[in-house]
Amino acid sequence: MKILLTNDDGIHAPGLFALYEVLKSDHEVFIVAPESEMSAVGHAITLTSPIRVQEVRKNGIIYGYAVKGTPADCVKIAVQELFDSPPDIVLSGINVGANVGVNILYSGTVSAATEGAFLGIRSAAISLATLKDPDFRFAARFSKEIIRFMLESGLSDGTALNVNIPALPPEEITGVCLTRQGTSRFEEHFERRNDPRGNVYYWLTGEKFIENGNPDNDSVALRQNRITITPIHYDLTCERELKRLKSFPLPAKP
Amino acid sequence: MKILLTNDDGIHAPGLFALYEVLKSDHEVFIVAPESEMSAVGHAITLTSPIRVQEVRKNGIIYGYAVKGTPADCVKIAVQELFDSPPDIVLSGINVGANVGVNILYSGTVSAATEGAFLGIRSAAISLATLKDPDFRFAARFSKEIIRFMLESGLSDGTALNVNIPALPPEEITGVCLTRQGTSRFEEHFERRNDPRGNVYYWLTGEKFIENGNPDNDSVALRQNRITITPIHYDLTCERELKRLKSFPLPAKP
Repeated sequence: MKILLTNDDGIHAPGLFALYEVLKSDHEVFIVAPESEMSAVGHAITLTSPIRVQEVRKNGIIYGYAVKGTPADCVKIAVQELFDSPPDIVLSGINVGANVGVNILYSGTVSAATEGAFLGIRSAAISLATLKDPDFRFAARFSKEIIRFMLESGLSDGTALNVNIPALPPEEITGVCLTRQGTSRFEEHFERRNDPRGNVYYWLTGEKFIENGNPDNDSVALRQNRITITPIHYDLTCERELKRLKSFPLPAKP
Repeated sequence: MKILLTNDDGIHAPGLFALYEVLKSDHEVFIVAPESEMSAVGHAITLTSPIRVQEVRKNGIIYGYAVKGTPADCVKIAVQELFDSPPDIVLSGINVGANVGVNILYSGTVSAATEGAFLGIRSAAISLATLKDPDFRFAARFSKEIIRFMLESGLSDGTALNVNIPALPPEEITGVCLTRQGTSRFEEHFERRNDPRGNVYYWLTGEKFIENGNPDNDSVALRQNRITITPIHYDLTCERELKRLKSFPLPAKP
């Protein structure tokens, strides 16, 4: 199969290389990834500046294409410009750090998978739940199972999988489960500082807030050392609220 | 009421000023907006650089705060740092150009409203469906009706309204309706060019693809000259696919 790999940690990230290494022998693997780290860019795309694409080689062989743009740009330009035919699969990752709960809205890794789904390609985002000393070997091997699952289940058009993998030795991982995007989020605040010239600036900082929620929710299942798979789409309509609002008089045209 | 105004076109945008003008006499209005245009940034937030905030004055009076960041940053920093108590309402806009269909995922305007909803504040994104010679007067007046609707309906926690207004004389607007996020999207491609040094670069370009869909869909209703109101949330879980996938064997732990 033809597999497009991308990420938001940049083309030189070891998590991307780990995916490449386990997939290259069985598949035609293409890498199109941001030239530098693009975390927390959400579903940004580049409209007002030109996008540059640079060939990246490893040991003299083409490894992939570095894009001066966001993860969503990478998927768009790969599918629409760089290759003759679209890939069969888009994998985004392996991200350093979990992508669960509300925070997936901020995630460049997840938005690359959503962009793949927009374009009608089976897509998954894969994240390893640690920020420290990531060991990608198990997660990379597991990505092959994710590909198999996408093919066997015939993942529906317009959906993608958001996969999170505990950063544990394989024997401590207690299972694999289908989950929902939960409500966990960062309890954020801003640090106010002065620069050497006395001007104020702010840094966003936050501690993780773990929800005490339903075990079907991604962050809860992940904390129970399970691999979580959440099918996501790009429809933000809140059906429940749509139904509820119908019982109120609509705003009048002034 | 205490109303926070923001946008993605930047603090000096006339669409923001139009909102300010119609709301300032009845409400306590605060402006916290990007210092420059931030279109298509999606739900990006700034993690890796400091955020600067600059007071902006008009005729010697404080007009608002310009933030070196994204629309989502503006809402976060306004709520968590700049004000003593959170606003009652967040309005994002008035955007130049509709925010309908799949493209709302890319929209900084919409993501500011979603960020407000994250933070538990009643929020709406307001967009005027034109890119040329926008006349914001009617849309600004209509924003007061949106505020009334949010209060009367008691908009549910975690939801926001995505409002689109046809760029027409008021008498040609045929109604107001509750809609779903439709499937309309841009049929995009990249233009390949050479810079003066002979290096290749790309520009994203696209024509609008209008869906021939359900009149409950935002872009379809908007094309019928109706004001569209779509309740949105930040849960990307695809419930239908979640249910469907349960009938397949899950990937095994390798």
